[in-house]
Amino acid sequence: MADFLTKMEDNYAQWYNDLVIKADLAENSAVRGCMVIKPYGYAIWEKVQSELDKLFKATGHVNAYFPLFIPKSFFAREADHVEGFAKECAVVTHYRLRNRSDGKGIEVDPDAKLEEELIIRPTSETIIWNTYKNWIQSYRDLPILINQWANVVRWEMRTRLFLRTAEFLWQEGHTAHATREEAVEETKTILDLYAHFVQEYMGIPVLKGSKSESEKFAGAIDTFAIEALMQDGKSLQAGTSHFLGQNFAKAFDVQFTDKSGKLEYVWSTSWGVSTRLMGALVMAHGDNNGLVLPPNLAPIQIVIVPIYKGNSQLDSISSTALKIKSDLEKHGLRVKYDDRDTHKPGFKFAEYELKGVPVRLAIGPRDIENGTIEVARRDTMTKEVINIDKTVKHLSGLLTDIQKNIFNKSLKYRDLNTYKVDTWDDFRESIENKGGFILAHWDGTAETEEKIKNETRATIRIIPIDNSSEAGKCVYSGKPSQKRVVFARAY
Amino acid sequence: MADFLTKMEDNYAQWYNDLVIKADLAENSAVRGCMVIKPYGYAIWEKVQSELDKLFKATGHVNAYFPLFIPKSFFAREADHVEGFAKECAVVTHYRLRNRSDGKGIEVDPDAKLEEELIIRPTSETIIWNTYKNWIQSYRDLPILINQWANVVRWEMRTRLFLRTAEFLWQEGHTAHATREEAVEETKTILDLYAHFVQEYMGIPVLKGSKSESEKFAGAIDTFAIEALMQDGKSLQAGTSHFLGQNFAKAFDVQFTDKSGKLEYVWSTSWGVSTRLMGALVMAHGDNNGLVLPPNLAPIQIVIVPIYKGNSQLDSISSTALKIKSDLEKHGLRVKYDDRDTHKPGFKFAEYELKGVPVRLAIGPRDIENGTIEVARRDTMTKEVINIDKTVKHLSGLLTDIQKNIFNKSLKYRDLNTYKVDTWDDFRESIENKGGFILAHWDGTAETEEKIKNETRATIRIIPIDNSSEAGKCVYSGKPSQKRVVFARAY
Repeated sequence: MADFLTKMEDNYAQWYNDLVIKADLAENSAVRGCMVIKPYGYAIWEKVQSELDKLFKATGHVNAYFPLFIPKSFFAREADHVEGFAKECAVVTHYRLRNRSDGKGIEVDPDAKLEEELIIRPTSETIIWNTYKNWIQSYRDLPILINQWANVVRWEMRTRLFLRTAEFLWQEGHTAHATREEAVEETKTILDLYAHFVQEYMGIPVLKGSKSESEKFAGAIDTFAIEALMQDGKSLQAGTSHFLGQNFAKAFDVQFTDKSGKLEYVWSTSWGVSTRLMGALVMAHGDNNGLVLPPNLAPIQIVIVPIYKGNSQLDSISSTALKIKSDLEKHGLRVKYDDRDTHKPGFKFAEYELKGVPVRLAIGPRDIENGTIEVARRDTMTKEVINIDKTVKHLSGLLTDIQKNIFNKSLKYRDLNTYKVDTWDDFRESIENKGGFILAHWDGTAETEEKIKNETRATIRIIPIDNSSEAGKCVYSGKPSQKRVVFARAY
Repeated sequence: MADFLTKMEDNYAQWYNDLVIKADLAENSAVRGCMVIKPYGYAIWEKVQSELDKLFKATGHVNAYFPLFIPKSFFAREADHVEGFAKECAVVTHYRLRNRSDGKGIEVDPDAKLEEELIIRPTSETIIWNTYKNWIQSYRDLPILINQWANVVRWEMRTRLFLRTAEFLWQEGHTAHATREEAVEETKTILDLYAHFVQEYMGIPVLKGSKSESEKFAGAIDTFAIEALMQDGKSLQAGTSHFLGQNFAKAFDVQFTDKSGKLEYVWSTSWGVSTRLMGALVMAHGDNNGLVLPPNLAPIQIVIVPIYKGNSQLDSISSTALKIKSDLEKHGLRVKYDDRDTHKPGFKFAEYELKGVPVRLAIGPRDIENGTIEVARRDTMTKEVINIDKTVKHLSGLLTDIQKNIFNKSLKYRDLNTYKVDTWDDFRESIENKGGFILAHWDGTAETEEKIKNETRATIRIIPIDNSSEAGKCVYSGKPSQKRVVFARAY
């Protein structure tokens, strides 16, 4: 199995692509830039959705659904937004096909041209704020705390499975508030929620912060983001939360009467995470044997493989294995018993390693005699033999340990690959030879930011939002700076 | 509240539309034919999704995701399918917009024309079978039992919220099998699953059967369906399960090596239910006061409304009400406590009647003194006062009773509106004046079926699949018939 994978150290990008395909997560489709998410990959995404959805609902949000199509003119209403989103997109111009007159297939019917073209949503601020206009009259109608699970399309030229695809799945929250303070608070609540999810469920440590002007969302006042370090030393933006001020309310004329009877524009936020998180999950934890899934999101947490010769051995092992499976499931664990007779144990071991199943149990005839079972961890690739009666107790604790270990390993990697840098020579040397996060002083100008990007391909991933300040000099311009920001090359 | 609703008996279509909007289920969007599903409507759809998804998984199905876009040429591969689906659809022809040279907004960039147009999926057989081609080589790769939750688009000219919209949400199952028998069996498993869901969860009795040639799915060998009777005497097709034979396997050249080493085309099925079910839910149970939701799908099963004057009364009622809420929730019930001080109890009562909440509890100061609570049922609009200590026990049983009662009421309505008809005069009279299901003999020809449709707007809803036969004469042509079929006017 693992022989089919390119080694990480040989070609990280190829290792990633191989792994996504070999582990049955996703593949490219016949449609340029669009992927097929395969059942195993989709099962992980369903866990992501289900856990995030619980967190959204626990913080007062509800789900709704808005149209796939956005009239072209809606984009033009918010000046920054149109520049950022309305360019590379899928445009519907016709609503009918007809048979060709030569009998060879079908063609677009020129009589069925739309009066106004429809854009497949690249993000839904415009259609949603056009709708909110009718929902909001008074402060009593606020806040609106809505999330949508949907597909969106951005016509990307260079695509990579999960990381950058023309169509992708995501959730997009769109909230409306009576005050600036409440909207800012919402933005931060969601940023914390995202950080909690990525750290506790995905097992990946993140940095939280705000984006520079050049990196923020088209139409936002402030963009906050979480950034995670992948094992090739590049950063991945794992979620964003935008404070939109009154921009979209003004663009769509959404005003409300406040408690004092005064007419005001509504304040808003939007925020999202996407199937890109699947890419982060692969790249943060995977190794040359395959995926390493955190137990909190693994569709199969424990796989049981029987080691046997002949049907009578299998029967006796199966009755024990199925009892263990049932006991583990009663404790809420997700277990698979793989008694396929078409594949040998060694093949199965490699397959579940490739697929990142956190724990593998193996039972052979000698185990049945001795009352033992072999427990193998995917994260450390270690094995131990335990008393079979202690399986349930042992495994509940083990899954918790694995979840923690995966996070700690990832955190240690990040700590080892985060550098404080104070000179431009060190900066260039560090980004080129070591990668990782660079903490450096920056003079706060877009000009310097762009020069650094052009010379090194490193961008400002986040500006820390804590209040720590440290006087220093910009690593590029030498001008004064009050704070270090985080640079990295990024996905 | 209910004053805003048109009465069912005055104008059923208007009553339906009013109710969908006033009960906050959905509304029309700025995009022609596309709806916004509002949070309350979406919460019901989420329950539908969650329960159906459990049933799919319990029968061995897994979820996956395929592209939104289908290359135009894919449709032309299956002759019937292209006629049925590739005509009224949304066509993507370009992938970029640009700023207009006059500075007035944006326009389609003529340089960004796609080589081949992309169709927004109206159903996904073609893109999925094009993918399955790469997944299937041997009988060991079969069966494939995949479901997809997705949005689809069919460019309908006349649209109605939930019942017929350009974009709608649905699930579509697409399975691949080694034998005809297994595929036919799958089709029936799903038909039974749909019937079970609609009857046990939605509380709506259904007829199961197959469709006539003219009503079947474009590309299918056989289409099976469930049909439900709405309160205006019209039938609604609530779910379909198609046996596709080897049609799509042949169109996309999907062959496999069977156990004997022979190359064969794969057998397939597809099946789906959509947000149309939401329309059925409204029309089957609603009344002039609003929705009547079955407890199994109600987002709020029980609402508690305090009756009070002044804050000190409210405090004492709230502590009791919150205790009851918490006790009910421990038993897995979905409960809301509505202590808004902006609305009077009468307003709240009408609002929850409009929204179809199955049970309303009211507690006033006298109840606190007496240790009682008022229980009101939405389905029967009856009230009783019970001992407050018995609330939890009483309500668990009551919700079960309500679920049964809603179903039985609907079944009784259907029984009363199902007619055996043996003459053409009776047929016309019955369909015109009474509506409902008509059980009549039919000679089995498409010609007769079409004449009946043209003269009465009644279509064959299902041909029963049970083995009961009854010799008779076609109600229209007088030719011999072995079985009655079910006619109705339909949505």
